[in-house]
Amino acid sequence: MVRVTRRYAFAASHRLHAPQLGPEENQRIYGKCNNPFGHGHNYVLEVSVRGPVDVETGRAVDLTLLDQLVQRVVLEPFDHRHLNTQVAEFASLVPTTENVALVAERRLREQWPAGWPRLEKIRIAETERNIFEVDGCSQNESR
Amino acid sequence: MVRVTRRYAFAASHRLHAPQLGPEENQRIYGKCNNPFGHGHNYVLEVSVRGPVDVETGRAVDLTLLDQLVQRVVLEPFDHRHLNTQVAEFASLVPTTENVALVAERRLREQWPAGWPRLEKIRIAETERNIFEVDGCSQNESR
Amino acid sequence: MVRVTRRYAFAASHRLHAPQLGPEENQRIYGKCNNPFGHGHNYVLEVSVRGPVDVETGRAVDLTLLDQLVQRVVLEPFDHRHLNTQVAEFASLVPTTENVALVAERRLREQWPAGWPRLEKIRIAETERNIFEVDGCSQNESR
Amino acid sequence: MVRVTRRYAFAASHRLHAPQLGPEENQRIYGKCNNPFGHGHNYVLEVSVRGPVDVETGRAVDLTLLDQLVQRVVLEPFDHRHLNTQVAEFASLVPTTENVALVAERRLREQWPAGWPRLEKIRIAETERNIFEVDGCSQNESR
Amino acid sequence: MVRVTRRYAFAASHRLHAPQLGPEENQRIYGKCNNPFGHGHNYVLEVSVRGPVDVETGRAVDLTLLDQLVQRVVLEPFDHRHLNTQVAEFASLVPTTENVALVAERRLREQWPAGWPRLEKIRIAETERNIFEVDGCSQNESR
Amino acid sequence: MVRVTRRYAFAASHRLHAPQLGPEENQRIYGKCNNPFGHGHNYVLEVSVRGPVDVETGRAVDLTLLDQLVQRVVLEPFDHRHLNTQVAEFASLVPTTENVALVAERRLREQWPAGWPRLEKIRIAETERNIFEVDGCSQNESR
Repeated sequence: MVRVTRRYAFAASHRLHAPQLGPEENQRIYGKCNNPFGHGHNYVLEVSVRGPVDVETGRAVDLTLLDQLVQRVVLEPFDHRHLNTQVAEFASLVPTTENVALVAERRLREQWPAGWPRLEKIRIAETERNIFEVDGCSQNESR
Repeated sequence: MVRVTRRYAFAASHRLHAPQLGPEENQRIYGKCNNPFGHGHNYVLEVSVRGPVDVETGRAVDLTLLDQLVQRVVLEPFDHRHLNTQVAEFASLVPTTENVALVAERRLREQWPAGWPRLEKIRIAETERNIFEVDGCSQNESR
Repeated sequence: MVRVTRRYAFAASHRLHAPQLGPEENQRIYGKCNNPFGHGHNYVLEVSVRGPVDVETGRAVDLTLLDQLVQRVVLEPFDHRHLNTQVAEFASLVPTTENVALVAERRLREQWPAGWPRLEKIRIAETERNIFEVDGCSQNESR
Repeated sequence: MVRVTRRYAFAASHRLHAPQLGPEENQRIYGKCNNPFGHGHNYVLEVSVRGPVDVETGRAVDLTLLDQLVQRVVLEPFDHRHLNTQVAEFASLVPTTENVALVAERRLREQWPAGWPRLEKIRIAETERNIFEVDGCSQNESR
Repeated sequence: MVRVTRRYAFAASHRLHAPQLGPEENQRIYGKCNNPFGHGHNYVLEVSVRGPVDVETGRAVDLTLLDQLVQRVVLEPFDHRHLNTQVAEFASLVPTTENVALVAERRLREQWPAGWPRLEKIRIAETERNIFEVDGCSQNESR
Repeated sequence: MVRVTRRYAFAASHRLHAPQLGPEENQRIYGKCNNPFGHGHNYVLEVSVRGPVDVETGRAVDLTLLDQLVQRVVLEPFDHRHLNTQVAEFASLVPTTENVALVAERRLREQWPAGWPRLEKIRIAETERNIFEVDGCSQNESR
């Protein structure tokens, strides 16, 4: 069994604001991330899969197909976008990177082809100092 | 003579759009950076100064004072902001990183205290793959 | 469930020397790290917590509060210090990075507020080539 | 219990080609990595061990001995080599990085001295974007 | 005037061997890089151009066109290749990274469109520890 | 002409204190770096040389000989040392990284063999955020 991790990047903007809370509470929780005009990040996304290595090809996953899936369900819709207004899930969900990671994982899981090795982990670094991970353990239980 | 470089970071959003050009032309020049809702980056700013080393203190520049200046004239106004709408210069200037670097250099130069070592270079990395530098050589000629 | 990792840095000096062992043995085990005058490192500390994402705020942990705790119990006492002489635990414990990680984890665990998400892992990189991790699994069992 | 990770590097060349498959199939699976003249990478190897910290020395593993073992069984035979032709295992095994990681792990495991802390994980980054890990969990079961 | 640097990557293999020198001399000069089966690297290429910023677009260079040129004359012919046997210049030139940088610079200079901002520097990192630069100053004199 | 840069690392400790100034002044200038017990860093040293590429060997500098010189005059005396007490120059010179860079450059220049390509630049990063460079331009004038 081998774990294969592939790294991707996307640039996006967002605003952190919980509509059911008042302005002071939003300011206290999100600080400058609550700025109404938004701000942005270079997000680094890592997708990890785990599976056996094929004896003939020496590969655990077809990286070309994985790239196509990640491109289609995460990168194309998220890259160079304003997450709050241009990604459907964030119409009713604050686009904290916790939620961006959960949404990316769900989008991948829902489109994950039968027979592929297990989707083990999603990792998104918002900056070099803030990193968010969703493990496949929980995701598989809830499948 | 020693060159001292100090690295800072800020996160911001922007939209690349030249109002005097039509939509097709904007799309051709800026591609997905022309998205009307904007996107963002983790910008890495480096400020380089050059000067002699003080015999007594062994320092070429007071980094505490440099940090305060950079914080006041660049980081505080740019960090977690939408550059087009929240930084005055970009009301009439496309916030490409070329222009962000030129504006940051001008803001620093205009507030640069007499007697400080020379402001030699500003460097802004928009991503790890796109880097923009303004040399102090030209800036000092035009002073 | 999301794992959130926050990265911090501190610079410190230390000397590796086991007083109950002789000089040759110390030299054999620690090599140039046994230099009596000490040496130093830029340590990179990562603190990982794991918990559910709050439906209203989209956050798994309040990073402002986490920063304050890490600042108070680890960074303020360790940063720009000589670990052997200025951190109480290392009066009787060799400040290898194994022990620095264990001490940092214990300090955080002892002050960890009830109701916070679980402290899952402490990671300290002494250099880019030497990395030390203490998992939360063992720490929670021994609590 | 502490996990200690030590990072190493080696440069090597390889060609990805499955002899039992036809040329079109090889091209489809491996793309430009199927180039008959080969290509190469700067591989980054990380070896992780897990064990208790010695009360007297404060160390979980003797890094000098670990370095000697990794040098002898992995770095010396792999560094600045053409993997297909100069490493015995790859005479009959496609040197994908999945297989390079499995072979490195097996070589280390077979020479792992009794009494050393557990070999927990091998990680090889082929590039910054492609990372392959073999966990010690499975390796110990199959021992 | 702004300097714009764009970063690219390619993976290749090579062998360092000077045919007019004997085997001992080759071994003394190139060490393990003289291995007849070759080895490889992940090369990081940076191309720097310098020019004025267009008032209307805020750009100093059209990065799409620059990418196409670099792709056509350097990346496509070098990436996933054995430099000695698959790049014409290295039939009679040892593919040290000094020479790889000189060849890349010459290829770009010969195809550099009139009217583009000046090609100022080529930088190739063979590993994180070995970096080679060709300045545009000398290149323009010899044009 | 090619510029070749080689990267090295050393870990050391130091204390910033100007004996001719009072305690308040030292505190104001050096802040927590004035801690009497010292602290430390992982310093990253880059040595850049510039010269023509040898037609026969394709090399601008013999890296083995350069490594030996840097090892002998900088790394061996500085690595895992307390700079103030174990490096002669810092008995009477505050070991700011400005001065560490100047001392490293002078040590290399004084031992630089005739016939070697020009020593162009010394760069020392004290942390990722603080970088100090001594250019060869000034050093050659003062030779």
